[in-house]
Order: sequence, then structure tokens, then C-alpha cells
Amino acid sequence: MESTNKSERFLRALQRKPIDRTPIWIMRQAGRYLPEYRATRAKAGDFLKLCKTPELACEVTLQPIQRFDLDAAILFSDILTIPDAMGLGLTVDEGVGPRFANPVRSKDAVYRLSAPDPEADLGYVMETVRLVRSELDGRVPLIGFAGSPWTLATYMVEGQSSKDFSVVKTMMFDQPETAHRLLQTLAQSVISYLTAQANAGAQALMIFDTWGGVLTRRDYDAFSLSYMSQIIAGLDDQLKEARPPIILFTKGGGQWLESTAATGCEGVGLDWTVDIKQARRRIGDRVCLQGNMDPNLLYAREHRIIEEVEIILQQYGSGSGHVFNLGHGIHPTIDHARVKLLVDVVHELSMPYHK
Amino acid sequence: MESTNKSERFLRALQRKPIDRTPIWIMRQAGRYLPEYRATRAKAGDFLKLCKTPELACEVTLQPIQRFDLDAAILFSDILTIPDAMGLGLTVDEGVGPRFANPVRSKDAVYRLSAPDPEADLGYVMETVRLVRSELDGRVPLIGFAGSPWTLATYMVEGQSSKDFSVVKTMMFDQPETAHRLLQTLAQSVISYLTAQANAGAQALMIFDTWGGVLTRRDYDAFSLSYMSQIIAGLDDQLKEARPPIILFTKGGGQWLESTAATGCEGVGLDWTVDIKQARRRIGDRVCLQGNMDPNLLYAREHRIIEEVEIILQQYGSGSGHVFNLGHGIHPTIDHARVKLLVDVVHELSMPYHK
Repeated sequence: MESTNKSERFLRALQRKPIDRTPIWIMRQAGRYLPEYRATRAKAGDFLKLCKTPELACEVTLQPIQRFDLDAAILFSDILTIPDAMGLGLTVDEGVGPRFANPVRSKDAVYRLSAPDPEADLGYVMETVRLVRSELDGRVPLIGFAGSPWTLATYMVEGQSSKDFSVVKTMMFDQPETAHRLLQTLAQSVISYLTAQANAGAQALMIFDTWGGVLTRRDYDAFSLSYMSQIIAGLDDQLKEARPPIILFTKGGGQWLESTAATGCEGVGLDWTVDIKQARRRIGDRVCLQGNMDPNLLYAREHRIIEEVEIILQQYGSGSGHVFNLGHGIHPTIDHARVKLLVDVVHELSMPYHK
Repeated sequence: MESTNKSERFLRALQRKPIDRTPIWIMRQAGRYLPEYRATRAKAGDFLKLCKTPELACEVTLQPIQRFDLDAAILFSDILTIPDAMGLGLTVDEGVGPRFANPVRSKDAVYRLSAPDPEADLGYVMETVRLVRSELDGRVPLIGFAGSPWTLATYMVEGQSSKDFSVVKTMMFDQPETAHRLLQTLAQSVISYLTAQANAGAQALMIFDTWGGVLTRRDYDAFSLSYMSQIIAGLDDQLKEARPPIILFTKGGGQWLESTAATGCEGVGLDWTVDIKQARRRIGDRVCLQGNMDPNLLYAREHRIIEEVEIILQQYGSGSGHVFNLGHGIHPTIDHARVKLLVDVVHELSMPYHK
């Protein structure tokens, strides 16, 4: 078809409306693989300071947009801003990862939590959204985001990243009411947080369920998916016609795509273990698919990256409804020249699929 | 049905022949959660010494059989014995995990490798198998095992455990011939290793594809599954009628069960993310299913463990063809009283499903 206004490509793909090329953005596109990001971060001092300083967070949000022909910007922030605002004492040290000084492990601790007020407690995020929108000036849309309640709960209960999630799972198994109360508080928090992001100007919303895939099918439904459904219903209710399109991404959730797609979301993120051709057959008539190149492919030689892009485009096939992305966040040691190649090649090679 | 001889329950389940109760064994059942294991390991000095001393390896193989009513023993050993015998200089330190002094990263290094001779280079394993068979005296069958070529390659190329497998994947992307040569050498090694284990007395064989699930569907087929198929064909060829039943287990491979089941194996291992009811519908008429309780459930209270066993048994449903197990190895900090409960409850609650 004729050329789509670049500012519309991503949002039209989410609505599965005709476009000229497959849009692309990259999870963690504002990140350590970019020298200009490292410079801004050095200026900020530490990671959280960077998140909490709207001018700097805006700066790094825009960096990949200035360098590459990306079709969307994503707010530079962290999924753990919500528990941080709840008073859990977040620190994020390079190489160590996030840690909470006050993990939430007892019924009492859970019942003491309350949903943060987005403007009062997380105003720096809304300010960043407003700044970015103003700076972008309509060039590309801005994606806001939050962590899923289950994913936030894993960090809050474990107190840090985990290998086997035994502490949070033991709470889930032995104190299901406490776990549900925690997830409920988090779902309410995410609803008001994403509502505020939308009101501040976010044009699409993504929910990162990074750790939903460590659950059984039944526990995923009960402890992760149901709260994401609740969030979507809550956003429908709060934002009505103005509710931006929502993308859900459960890493490791390839077996449950039908359920994820049935939540009322507009897009489903796919990690690289999912065959996108099969995924389209399973859910692609209902939602847009986002993904799903193995992030490690960006370490490969150029011709191999080009080959992989062609395979993924071909597997998805003709027509709109695909947003190209990696299947997980970009690694910090990737050469940014590879990212430029990827973005350009996706645009170039996808044209025949949108005739 | 009437009581099955306990020594036959596991092997009959693998053949999907009628039995009286669902058999159970537990991945890493000979391990650190047992005080008697820790005592023997202390006596041995270190983990590899324990693997390489047939009397001690036999001792720890038998420990869980003496303590619990398990339906199978599994050889105490490590998947990395093959690369160790290839001269890569394996060390296994607690808390650090396995490390190779000489990782295999170049084409030259790969082409220098040759398949170890099982009796000459891995004789301690065969000696352990013979000792265990003699000590077991037919009480329960003995499972031998090996790592899948892909899984062995990840450790050999990375030099240690990995989070993102970028080194081995870069070899796979950029030097596919070198990667295939390595996997080919490993497949040949596994064929002769498992043939020797069978000849020494192993009555079932398991192939652990611990890291197949980090691949895309296409790369899984090409770099992991095809070599496991080759191994099964090789064992058919070597052992003919005497070829023991084979269980393949790709952790994270729930999306690809049909392919795994089509290799000619008798059993497919399921991790806990797989819905065993759906798995039976997908492949259960062709193979036995092994699994698949979340290992973290053994941290839960007794009633919750019992409830979960009942759910899994019910989801599998009536008839033979299910070997109960965890969906991954048992954690070292589990209370062994929970293991006793699990084993007994599986036997007790499964009776109605075998009427």
C-alpha cells in the first residue's frame, strides 16, 4: 500500500489496519548498549536517579529515536517504581540487580500496603511522559508501561531477583489469601498508574509479565493472568474511549497465548521460543503479535541477522498485525550498529508483505 | 487392577501397560536434601570424586531407595562426565556450579574433540551401574542417563552455566558447521555412552535436554531435537531388541511436545508449566508422560502437597502411561519428610485411576 505516516505505523499495526511496512521498536531500546545512554546515566549518578529525574529520563527515552528509525518510543522507567513508591526501599546496583530493603513477607506486611497515588507518589513518571510527548512532537507514539502484579510481587516478596521463586511461591501455596490480597493491591496500583500515564499522554500501554512463565498453567491463570484481565477492565472503566491499546507480554507464556489474547488486550508479546506462524494461527485474528527475534541474534554477523528477519517476516506472513521486536530486552553488550541494521532491514524487507 | 510387582511398575508405565498405582521417582532424588547424602559426599571430598568412586556413587544412588518407596533408582552421576572425559577439565564447586578449564570455542578446538570410549574413559560409570544393579537385586529398575548434545554443548562452549547462552548461540548463528560438528561428536559420544550403560545393566535411559528450551522452535529442531533423534536411532541400531525404554526431557519444551514425542522415545518428561491433561491429549496415545509437579510445592504445607498430587493425577486421568515426578530436580533445601509424603501420597491417591 502507499506510504503510512510513520507516526501511525505502530498504532495502526496494533489495530491490525493496513500499513506500508512492519513497525519495529526494541525492548530496552533506551539502555546501556548506547554510549549516549551511558553518558546520561553517569551524569545522573545511578539508575534510580535517572528514572526519577524527568529531564534525564526524557533524554534517554529519546536517544534511540534520534539514532534509529524506530516506530515507537517507550518511556524510560522501571517496573519497580510502584513498590518503591509503596515504601519498600528499592536500590538498583549494576551487576547486582534490584533489591528491596523491606521485602513483603508476612500477612501483616501485605495488609499494610496501599496503592500509591500516581500524581503524588509517582509524579516524576507522569512528568517524564508529558516531557517526552512534548519533545517527540508527534514523530512517533509513546508507549507507557507497568509490571504485571505477579511479576511485581515476585520482587517484593523475594526482595530481589530470584532463580526459583521459592519464597513467593510458598506464600502463594500456603497463604493464597495473602498472595491474592497483595496481587489485588498491585492490580489497583497498576490501574491508577497506567490511567495516569495515559492521561499524561502515553499512546499505548504495555504490561510486562516477566515472570508469569515460571508458574503452572493453573497458577498463571489464578495469580497472574486474572489480575492482568482485571487491569484491562479497570482501564476500560477509567479511560473509556480514550483507553490506549494494551500489549500483554508473558515471557515463557507461549503455551497460554489463547488465554492471554482473551483478556481484551490489543497486542500479545511473544518471546523467541514461540513460532510466530503458529501464534498467528492461534490468536492472530484477534490481536496484534509483537516480537520475536532471539536477542542473541544481535551478536551474530550481519547476513545472519538479515536472514532471521526475513524468516520471521515470512512466518508472520502478509498483512498488518505484526510489530517487530526482540523476544526479550536487548542485551547491554550489543553493538548499536547491529540495531541500526535490524531496524532498517525490518522496514526494507517487510514492504512486500504489505502490498 | 491387582497389585503390580513393584519392580515392574515403572517399566510397565513406560510401556503404557496396566499397573496398580502410578509409579514415582524424583529428579535428583540422590542429593543434598538427604543427610546421608551429605555424609557420603563429605567422605568423598568433592562432588566429582563422589561421581568417580563407584562404591560411593552406588551408595548415594541407593540412599533414596532405602528411605522412600520410590519405583526407580537413577544412577548417581553428572551429565558433564562426557566433556570431562574429553579433557575439558571439569570442576564442580558448591555454589559456583560446573566450570571447564578448557572451554571449546574455536573450530580447531571442536575438530580436535573425539568421542570418549565408555569403558576406557568412563569405566567408573559402568562400574557404578553394575554395582547398583547388583545391590538393587531387582527391587526397582535402574535408570541410566546422559545430557543432550545441545545441553552438553552449552556448558562446553560457555565454559560454565549461562544466563543468556550468548557464546554458544553466537557459534550456532555464525559458525553453524562448527556447532553441528560439535553436536555430532556429542551425539556419537552419547550413543556409545548410553549403549555401555545399557550393557552394564541400565533398564531405562533418560536424556536431559535441560537447555533445549532456550532455543527458537527452528533452532530446537535443528540443534537439539535432531541429535536426540539420532541418538535414539543409534541406540536402536546398537542394542536392537535389548534397547531399554528412553525418556526425553526438554525443560521449557512444552510448546514442542509433538516433535519430542515423534523421536521414537517411549517417554516424554514434562516441566510444571505444561498442563498434563492437554499433554496427554497431544501426545499421550504415543508415549508415556513423566512429571510434572512444581518442585517448589515441596516447600508447601502437607495438605497443599496432597491437593496438588490429586490435581495432577486427576488431570492425567485413568489408565497407565504416567510416571509421577517433579517438573525439575528437587531443591537441595527441601525437607525430606515432604518427599516421603509425596511418594506415599502418589501411590495411595493413584489407585482409583488404575481400577
